[in-house]
Amino acid sequence: MTLTGKMLIGQHATAGTREAIRAINPATDTALEPAYLGGNGEHVTQACALAWAALDAYRETSLEARATFLETIAAHIEALGDELIDRAVAETGLPRPRIQGERARTCGQLRTFARTVRAGEWLDVRVDNPQPQRQPLPRPDLRQRHIALGPVAVFGASNFPLAFSVAGGDTASALAAGCPVIVKAHGAHPGTSELVGRAVAKAVKACGLPEGVFSLLYGSGREVGIALVTDPRIKAVGFTGSRSGGLALIQAAQARPEPIPVYAEMSSINPVYLFPAALAARGEALAQGFVASLTQGAGQFCTNPGLVIAVQGPALDRFISLASGLLPTCGAQTMLTPGIASAYAAGVGALAEHAKVAAQGLPATGPNQGQAHLFVTQAQAFLANEHLQAEVFGAASLLVVCVDNEEVRQVSEHLEGQLTATLHMDENDLPDAKALLPVLERKAGRLLVNGWPTGVEVCDAMVHGGPFPATSDARSTSVGTAAIQRFLRPVCYQDFLDALLPAALQHGNPLLLRRLLDGQREA
Amino acid sequence: MTLTGKMLIGQHATAGTREAIRAINPATDTALEPAYLGGNGEHVTQACALAWAALDAYRETSLEARATFLETIAAHIEALGDELIDRAVAETGLPRPRIQGERARTCGQLRTFARTVRAGEWLDVRVDNPQPQRQPLPRPDLRQRHIALGPVAVFGASNFPLAFSVAGGDTASALAAGCPVIVKAHGAHPGTSELVGRAVAKAVKACGLPEGVFSLLYGSGREVGIALVTDPRIKAVGFTGSRSGGLALIQAAQARPEPIPVYAEMSSINPVYLFPAALAARGEALAQGFVASLTQGAGQFCTNPGLVIAVQGPALDRFISLASGLLPTCGAQTMLTPGIASAYAAGVGALAEHAKVAAQGLPATGPNQGQAHLFVTQAQAFLANEHLQAEVFGAASLLVVCVDNEEVRQVSEHLEGQLTATLHMDENDLPDAKALLPVLERKAGRLLVNGWPTGVEVCDAMVHGGPFPATSDARSTSVGTAAIQRFLRPVCYQDFLDALLPAALQHGNPLLLRRLLDGQREA
Repeated sequence: MTLTGKMLIGQHATAGTREAIRAINPATDTALEPAYLGGNGEHVTQACALAWAALDAYRETSLEARATFLETIAAHIEALGDELIDRAVAETGLPRPRIQGERARTCGQLRTFARTVRAGEWLDVRVDNPQPQRQPLPRPDLRQRHIALGPVAVFGASNFPLAFSVAGGDTASALAAGCPVIVKAHGAHPGTSELVGRAVAKAVKACGLPEGVFSLLYGSGREVGIALVTDPRIKAVGFTGSRSGGLALIQAAQARPEPIPVYAEMSSINPVYLFPAALAARGEALAQGFVASLTQGAGQFCTNPGLVIAVQGPALDRFISLASGLLPTCGAQTMLTPGIASAYAAGVGALAEHAKVAAQGLPATGPNQGQAHLFVTQAQAFLANEHLQAEVFGAASLLVVCVDNEEVRQVSEHLEGQLTATLHMDENDLPDAKALLPVLERKAGRLLVNGWPTGVEVCDAMVHGGPFPATSDARSTSVGTAAIQRFLRPVCYQDFLDALLPAALQHGNPLLLRRLLDGQREA
Repeated sequence: MTLTGKMLIGQHATAGTREAIRAINPATDTALEPAYLGGNGEHVTQACALAWAALDAYRETSLEARATFLETIAAHIEALGDELIDRAVAETGLPRPRIQGERARTCGQLRTFARTVRAGEWLDVRVDNPQPQRQPLPRPDLRQRHIALGPVAVFGASNFPLAFSVAGGDTASALAAGCPVIVKAHGAHPGTSELVGRAVAKAVKACGLPEGVFSLLYGSGREVGIALVTDPRIKAVGFTGSRSGGLALIQAAQARPEPIPVYAEMSSINPVYLFPAALAARGEALAQGFVASLTQGAGQFCTNPGLVIAVQGPALDRFISLASGLLPTCGAQTMLTPGIASAYAAGVGALAEHAKVAAQGLPATGPNQGQAHLFVTQAQAFLANEHLQAEVFGAASLLVVCVDNEEVRQVSEHLEGQLTATLHMDENDLPDAKALLPVLERKAGRLLVNGWPTGVEVCDAMVHGGPFPATSDARSTSVGTAAIQRFLRPVCYQDFLDALLPAALQHGNPLLLRRLLDGQREA
């Protein structure tokens, strides 16, 4: 397949008219062909008109048809074969096995949502039968289901060119909910985006769906991004990226005549707590695990352990010394883009002004490489300086030394919202962990014991979310099957004739759903 | 019980320091004792500090303890007896049977939420068991439950002094979710608010809960309201009232360093469609039903039928003539407050500038009475004039005459978001209704066939919500058991020891919940 450099407005390959976007191979600092000309407001309008025209039909596709569509997307992505892997490696500098794994994750994610769609629990069907004899007033027949919010704008993430990009988590969950999707491709991997976008468009066609179910646009955030978010036909937004980028979209969405929800995943430093007994029993394993999690993928994960919190003492000193011994053996790694590499260097520089450098990884040997950093500071300094809890995207972490549990608690209460919080603990740490748990529940979407936050499972129980600024909406998750709920709203049907009811609500329960029927869940 | 004119900050009766609020009996235009001095920022701070201190304990109360608390509130409200009824009638001008019915609804609502709390489905427990042998990486143990968002600020509504006020739907659903509640009483019924607030505070004490679970404040929206919404310890807001009031709270909530969700129910004109066959078959019954729904409770319902849409023809002419014949027999009714009565008069005056008056009810014979109004206009005029879809709170309705189904569709697509949409139809209208249904699903939270939108059942299937500006968040409902979900967020626990897990997630499933276990719903 030859890359065309074109957008996809429904089934139509369309060239942009604005400034060219070219991927850069960050490992070699060379630009990749072809050029992707940015779209303009008219392209956004066209894509939104198609999405709007597709909405009513797409949101009423059968569970089976919609699930099959998601599976067909997965099959078409797999059919791209090595061309996709080669291009994604070139555009991101990520190792080949990582991209292969991410493709498996992306296709698995689509198939997981297919299972969720078929199960139909997301419809949340509730039936309250009529009570014509009730006094003082009869009760009508009331039935509730969930329907799609409407067309969704998805902004691809830089750090997951497959799993959180064109056919990634936001797209999969929005399509699963019955929402047409318009993706604004991330400028860092336009070729990967084109390949995947064409796979999705092929699946739309193969499944006989209206073309507006999916479009793929390129262009600037300022022009195409804002035009998308402010188009009246867009009813929700999914975004993974920087805090400033997310806040700009939120502001635009709220300033609309009809404000819409924005699900922005923005910023997290993912505190890791090292409790005394665990630290004393296995400082070495903790140091190794920490350094491995910190440096994995050049630290370019939203769940990178950017903060370590522990009470002072010899065991902590030993952990710092062990980690500081390991870090200088870690090679610098190519980061995703020149922009991310320079932002990382700037972030590390800013941290160095406020905290002590405990250790560094090996220096860069090629372009756009990030050098791992471990900083150390005292709890009181951390509490006094907001700069110290700013996310530095990359393999940098700050260890906060506390004098006692009370300071651990103070530091924890002082934290902004987080995606994760991790407790390393042994049996003897249980009372301390129990005491801290309520604070962590208030602060983070996912809590881990004796693991590392990097690695986000796609499953039913996952929460990849958390209080602001980790995300803009702590009431949901961007990873896992519960993400479908972001793009739904409830509708109640009162005293409807069966002939006018959607299948999910018909009296005969043709979809065989376990409804909440007169207050009881059906078996 | 003697009314004290004091706020309740936790268990403490506290006098305000700001301008006095006095209820006015709208039927007599006389002020009622006692005066309620408005609170200030310091009172807000105290209430929020107590709520924050109560949060971690209250949100972990057992299902049984929390359900019992809700039931205890209901019992204490009932124990107020006639004093509550008398005061509410005096403060609102609403008929005694209506207030009695509303008390039954309010207590029934609390008991319904108690049932929902006990059933535990709101915890949405999901368990993905570990797969230690999985390749390339083992899967950890992942468990999800929902927890309370945090303290909630509730703004009482003027038009439901019991069911959507101090212990109304927002309070009941927030308490059910495990959130402490701080109510800002509506200035129109401070005495009713004090009585109910004391009943809630008594229940807090009787159940041995931390006092900060409930506080009741008086004061201005500008001072107390904004201070509440911007206090960092408040994590969500429930509001029922005017569009301008709701938007002011939303703006304040979004401007916080940590923005929070605001559930504002604001404005709806509740379109009613009269389809040709129904109109031909039973124009008289429709006219009677319409006038009864329009004038019920002086039209002071969010679901009042403020818009009627139909295709022109002799049957519609007959309906207009019948309704216009009935309206002049309807007496003017006392409205809730002098402010509402004058706003209604102004709204009717504004409509009269843009649409033809078809009929009027009897003129006022006492203070603060509203005179029913029916206006008629043509579809093209409606489409051209945004003023015509502004809500006029009271017994005013606008009938829009369309030349054909296409105009019906245009008018429907032109509508802002609504709480309800109603179809009056017969078998022969089914094709037309089916064609219109997708538009109405996109526009409204509840769709009715052959009923009237006034009357909102408290049950599992109810949706009292809808797209902006009907509400600020179409993803939820303010009436019915699904409202509990507004005040929850998911948290995932990874590889937790049983000893550290909340009961809902423990391996032995001690709460006997039907979990989503490895992708399957437990029987």
